[in-house]
Amino acid sequence: MGGTFESLLMSTVSSGSSINGTLQGDQAAVLDSMTAIKDAINAVYLLFSAYLVFSMQLGFAMLCAGSVRAKNTMNIMLTNVIDAAIGGVFYYLFGFAFAFGTSSGFIGHSFFALTGVPNDTYDYSYYLYQWAFAIAVAGITSGSIAERTQFGAYLTYSCVLTGFVYPIASHWFWSSYGWASPDRNKGLLFGSGAIDFAGSGVVHVVGGVAGLWGALIEGPRVGRFDAFGKSVAMRGHNATLVVLGTFLLWFGWYGFNAGSFIQILTTSTSGLLEGNWSGVGRTAVTTTLAGSMAALTTLFGKRLLSGHWNALDVCNGLLGGFVAITSGCSVVDPWAAIVCGFVAAWVLIGFNALALRLKFDDPLEAAQLHGGCGVWGVIFTGLFAAENHMVEVYPPANGDTTRPFGLLMGGGWRLLGAQVVEVLAIVGWVTVTMGPLFYAMQRMDLLRIGREEETAGMDISSHGGFAYDHSLPDEGPSRRYIDYLQK
Amino acid sequence: MGGTFESLLMSTVSSGSSINGTLQGDQAAVLDSMTAIKDAINAVYLLFSAYLVFSMQLGFAMLCAGSVRAKNTMNIMLTNVIDAAIGGVFYYLFGFAFAFGTSSGFIGHSFFALTGVPNDTYDYSYYLYQWAFAIAVAGITSGSIAERTQFGAYLTYSCVLTGFVYPIASHWFWSSYGWASPDRNKGLLFGSGAIDFAGSGVVHVVGGVAGLWGALIEGPRVGRFDAFGKSVAMRGHNATLVVLGTFLLWFGWYGFNAGSFIQILTTSTSGLLEGNWSGVGRTAVTTTLAGSMAALTTLFGKRLLSGHWNALDVCNGLLGGFVAITSGCSVVDPWAAIVCGFVAAWVLIGFNALALRLKFDDPLEAAQLHGGCGVWGVIFTGLFAAENHMVEVYPPANGDTTRPFGLLMGGGWRLLGAQVVEVLAIVGWVTVTMGPLFYAMQRMDLLRIGREEETAGMDISSHGGFAYDHSLPDEGPSRRYIDYLQK
Amino acid sequence: MGGTFESLLMSTVSSGSSINGTLQGDQAAVLDSMTAIKDAINAVYLLFSAYLVFSMQLGFAMLCAGSVRAKNTMNIMLTNVIDAAIGGVFYYLFGFAFAFGTSSGFIGHSFFALTGVPNDTYDYSYYLYQWAFAIAVAGITSGSIAERTQFGAYLTYSCVLTGFVYPIASHWFWSSYGWASPDRNKGLLFGSGAIDFAGSGVVHVVGGVAGLWGALIEGPRVGRFDAFGKSVAMRGHNATLVVLGTFLLWFGWYGFNAGSFIQILTTSTSGLLEGNWSGVGRTAVTTTLAGSMAALTTLFGKRLLSGHWNALDVCNGLLGGFVAITSGCSVVDPWAAIVCGFVAAWVLIGFNALALRLKFDDPLEAAQLHGGCGVWGVIFTGLFAAENHMVEVYPPANGDTTRPFGLLMGGGWRLLGAQVVEVLAIVGWVTVTMGPLFYAMQRMDLLRIGREEETAGMDISSHGGFAYDHSLPDEGPSRRYIDYLQK
Repeated sequence: MGGTFESLLMSTVSSGSSINGTLQGDQAAVLDSMTAIKDAINAVYLLFSAYLVFSMQLGFAMLCAGSVRAKNTMNIMLTNVIDAAIGGVFYYLFGFAFAFGTSSGFIGHSFFALTGVPNDTYDYSYYLYQWAFAIAVAGITSGSIAERTQFGAYLTYSCVLTGFVYPIASHWFWSSYGWASPDRNKGLLFGSGAIDFAGSGVVHVVGGVAGLWGALIEGPRVGRFDAFGKSVAMRGHNATLVVLGTFLLWFGWYGFNAGSFIQILTTSTSGLLEGNWSGVGRTAVTTTLAGSMAALTTLFGKRLLSGHWNALDVCNGLLGGFVAITSGCSVVDPWAAIVCGFVAAWVLIGFNALALRLKFDDPLEAAQLHGGCGVWGVIFTGLFAAENHMVEVYPPANGDTTRPFGLLMGGGWRLLGAQVVEVLAIVGWVTVTMGPLFYAMQRMDLLRIGREEETAGMDISSHGGFAYDHSLPDEGPSRRYIDYLQK
Repeated sequence: MGGTFESLLMSTVSSGSSINGTLQGDQAAVLDSMTAIKDAINAVYLLFSAYLVFSMQLGFAMLCAGSVRAKNTMNIMLTNVIDAAIGGVFYYLFGFAFAFGTSSGFIGHSFFALTGVPNDTYDYSYYLYQWAFAIAVAGITSGSIAERTQFGAYLTYSCVLTGFVYPIASHWFWSSYGWASPDRNKGLLFGSGAIDFAGSGVVHVVGGVAGLWGALIEGPRVGRFDAFGKSVAMRGHNATLVVLGTFLLWFGWYGFNAGSFIQILTTSTSGLLEGNWSGVGRTAVTTTLAGSMAALTTLFGKRLLSGHWNALDVCNGLLGGFVAITSGCSVVDPWAAIVCGFVAAWVLIGFNALALRLKFDDPLEAAQLHGGCGVWGVIFTGLFAAENHMVEVYPPANGDTTRPFGLLMGGGWRLLGAQVVEVLAIVGWVTVTMGPLFYAMQRMDLLRIGREEETAGMDISSHGGFAYDHSLPDEGPSRRYIDYLQK
Repeated sequence: MGGTFESLLMSTVSSGSSINGTLQGDQAAVLDSMTAIKDAINAVYLLFSAYLVFSMQLGFAMLCAGSVRAKNTMNIMLTNVIDAAIGGVFYYLFGFAFAFGTSSGFIGHSFFALTGVPNDTYDYSYYLYQWAFAIAVAGITSGSIAERTQFGAYLTYSCVLTGFVYPIASHWFWSSYGWASPDRNKGLLFGSGAIDFAGSGVVHVVGGVAGLWGALIEGPRVGRFDAFGKSVAMRGHNATLVVLGTFLLWFGWYGFNAGSFIQILTTSTSGLLEGNWSGVGRTAVTTTLAGSMAALTTLFGKRLLSGHWNALDVCNGLLGGFVAITSGCSVVDPWAAIVCGFVAAWVLIGFNALALRLKFDDPLEAAQLHGGCGVWGVIFTGLFAAENHMVEVYPPANGDTTRPFGLLMGGGWRLLGAQVVEVLAIVGWVTVTMGPLFYAMQRMDLLRIGREEETAGMDISSHGGFAYDHSLPDEGPSRRYIDYLQK
């Protein structure tokens, strides 16, 4: 273990007695180097996945911008930038500690301001990856309450959601200390633990339910429903931005889902290096299939229902498919992902019809999409999770060789039961935290902007000016200039 | 081979006789771990390359959107989203099977719906990478027939192209079963096999020729040529989107070309691990050089021809350089890539001039760009492929130490012959499949939209509304609001 | 060393005497394979980092496009595309040689047109990564002189900057031959060498100072200051593009900073493989924190100063934070990054106020942002670099166990001194090269466009037309068409 690796390897093994010492040094060197290789590969895999997840924030910004009216573009984009920045500071200070610190199951209480990180369990790359998830949640909610929320209220809920509500929800299901973690599969939750691989529930239902309460308490935008209660379409100002945002979210979702293995190379119980590469690839494939199928289903479904081929609905349908597969992406077969996407499209269509009937106004359909399809996704996992993938991705503890899996795959009711508990726990938790927060702000006149301000647009009233000035020199001068050039 | 890797490595080798057993276990452990490492690295490399290739679909969407008139934006963007979704389902169901299944050389017939995948040859990551390629083809063609094609016709050709025509073309050249594969370099194709590394022919000529037939059969857009046959420029509505799309395509092209090695770490014939990293890097460099040179050539060429510095032409020139280098990117020297780009720019300028003369209307210049520069790229490889790179990237079989390479590099006519056969085979195959399809749809009035619909724009007639509403509150209210605030 | 790796590993070690030979072969095989693994991982890490850095060019293009008036959009975007293309050719021909060739400290003089690359030190991936940095510099400068510069002048300075001025600056600090390199930490620069990890100075100050001289010599845009010297706001035409560009730059900055380790897996002095993964992750985290804190500081700072929540200022503040942390990102603790971002925001606010007072017009605030925050970043490193990170990232030579580190961390004045020398050297070098170049072009009437051209917009005068045509069919026809459909 002294000498260099190279010299050890190259040295002539001259006598039987010296073999022992040399070999041991050699073996230790190989072992150390293999561990270094494993850590390096995993860091590359996780960091670049984190970058992809971060790019979803850009996707959200563009999707939101395109979906609101031009007079509120500056406002919504600022919220998306600030989401990431607030998360950058607050998730560092305490969000990560609440989510992944040591705990008795409810809330973590170590690693504040990354004290004690890196350690054997968490390196910086893990923190970055989790931060990129955290900022997505506030982005979801900002869509629901777009075009009518005071900027101060926005700052408040964004801090609370990113720094407290979401971290605790993620602690329950993703930290090995969490009360509903699949690692604690003995006893709690029907001996199963809930399976929410990349967060249909932990991320999307949290963001969607928060948005639901925000939008409910604020009420619809001025003019969204006329004096007779009839809905009036309020089209976003730029469909190109919606498509741009949708594709960026698709791009980033590969980091979100396929990156959630955290490690692509692991040390097996027998000490060998082995890997998740096939699972990672399968996850990318199920994600693609669910989104694609949801998009096609929406395309034809809306064609039948409305008579035209609607690009914006297809974008939302596609995203609904992604939201739904996010929970079970790693533990279902590709064919099941197609089922997932097909149903997700109808879930979204159904919730949108319901929202219209209830005069619920969510400019981005975020509550319906992330909340509704997210709930479907968590349940879907309880129905379709395959035994072999479950055992591969969530190795059974205590010497077991199997664990509860999907009801329709012959795995019994236990996993489905755990999934239902997850849905109830998340909806309940977000409701008792964000509901009162939004309600209190509303009562104190801190939530919704004034009617005249809403009519004028938030960009001019709060953000110093409109986002666009596409005016071009009138024909006169430029025409004259061309004449001048041609002289 | 029992015990843990660590214990094996750490155990004291106590006696000569026990060394044998321990060492063998140790060696097997190291070997297994090394294989795991190789697979993990390759999966990271290939998956992230696939994500990059997928981002090209966003690039296409933006490029297409910016290149059409505002009234057809929703339509063209929907086609781009649906391309990816149709590919997501159809390439899964049978496209991949046709392309990479076992066969006697013409069409694959296993792996339908990914049955039997993963296996020793193909893992999910490979499928995902190939899917990202497949959806690009339909994207190319949609540009050629933009602004005048019925959505139903679009759905039809997209399924056929992504699920059948393209998979078979790729089978011929990229599957080791394919009749023109470089792996079958004995006998067929002058003892060479065609070299189309990342698909100037397989992807771009296929998409371009399909677009050529579509655009020819549909005819020019209303008003593209006036009553006297004089061309009337129909500028796209948003040059920013064109530049955005171009840069995204550039970004994604690194996944397309440099990712086409599939493996960055391989097992050599002597059993050692060795790698393609230098080839991967060189491919990224040749790609950059060809595109850059083509852009500069177009900049100055068009300045001479038209008198101004044209950003849109530079974007197309750049893309033409990328299309051309795609075939030979891994087997030519950097200096040759500069030649490739220089010629590609003039090929595009030439084909555009020809199109104008023939009154051929392709709103994206897709047939000229992907078809024309793609053909040049396949030929270029036959001229400039370097022997050392050919041997490195396409190891000769049967104990040979070399294989045919570029004519101008002293490699004789055989590779060039094979490349010419590739061009003829692809042009022929696409012509006999897509030509009749477009023609039949045209005859049944299923291809082109009505004249009034075309004038009104497809967004309002088929997609439920225009893509844009940039209206802002008029000065009155907002002015009043500001006055109100200042009270 | 003959036989295959597998057979060697699997062969039964039958007798004491044959152990020696087998083991040596085995060991050599493992060693070779480990080296291959290291190179493959590093190539994946560096190439994908390079792609991320390249995506910043798209970010610049969008940021610039959105920040200028609609009439100059085509012009500014063309400059961004051409930056990349000019860099693609010129950095290949001699930029890389000047930057990383062998030298006596001032300018490299080997590797022209990549002759001799790949070699033991530099592979193609390294070249690609450095090229992506080089093109960023010209992009920075183009922002400062936007909306009023002749295209020929732009081509000239872009070639000189990318092919000569920047390569030499980077040679001084980043090549191990450079006179100010941290590798030459004996003797020169107070026994320290300057630390500019990813280039707050080498990239951003170079680009910013070049822009400063360009903008100073050209003078403000027509109408930027009225007849009484009062400033008139010239808002960009599209805030959505600004936000899009900002997020893309954020995305790409992870490649820029976290990629600058070049290797994520290294061979230690003792011959073992060890890694930078923790440092790479930490760098991504400090980058995130500095940008986030700068954004929040700007948000509240500008709210206090101007009374509204300004999205565009927040974007620039965010970028200022990134620019500042770029120098020390790998050698400071996360908490220090928060300090860095906080100060960077005020540096930018201060320099912008100063610019206004001095009637300095930089449409992108590029000189203030990249120049001002870049200088702060270089100094910041001299104040806050931590000893443990310095030793880890820049291993001391000559058997030393430590090296100079940040003044406020107890490391004395030597590093800070070296950092001040870096600032002076870069500002001086860019001033004596780019200053005379801009001045000479101005004197020859080759720099600034004519007043009438400026009023008409450069797109119509130089680039063949405006970037936008958002006109839609008037209500008449489409209304008629809808009526027609409803018949």
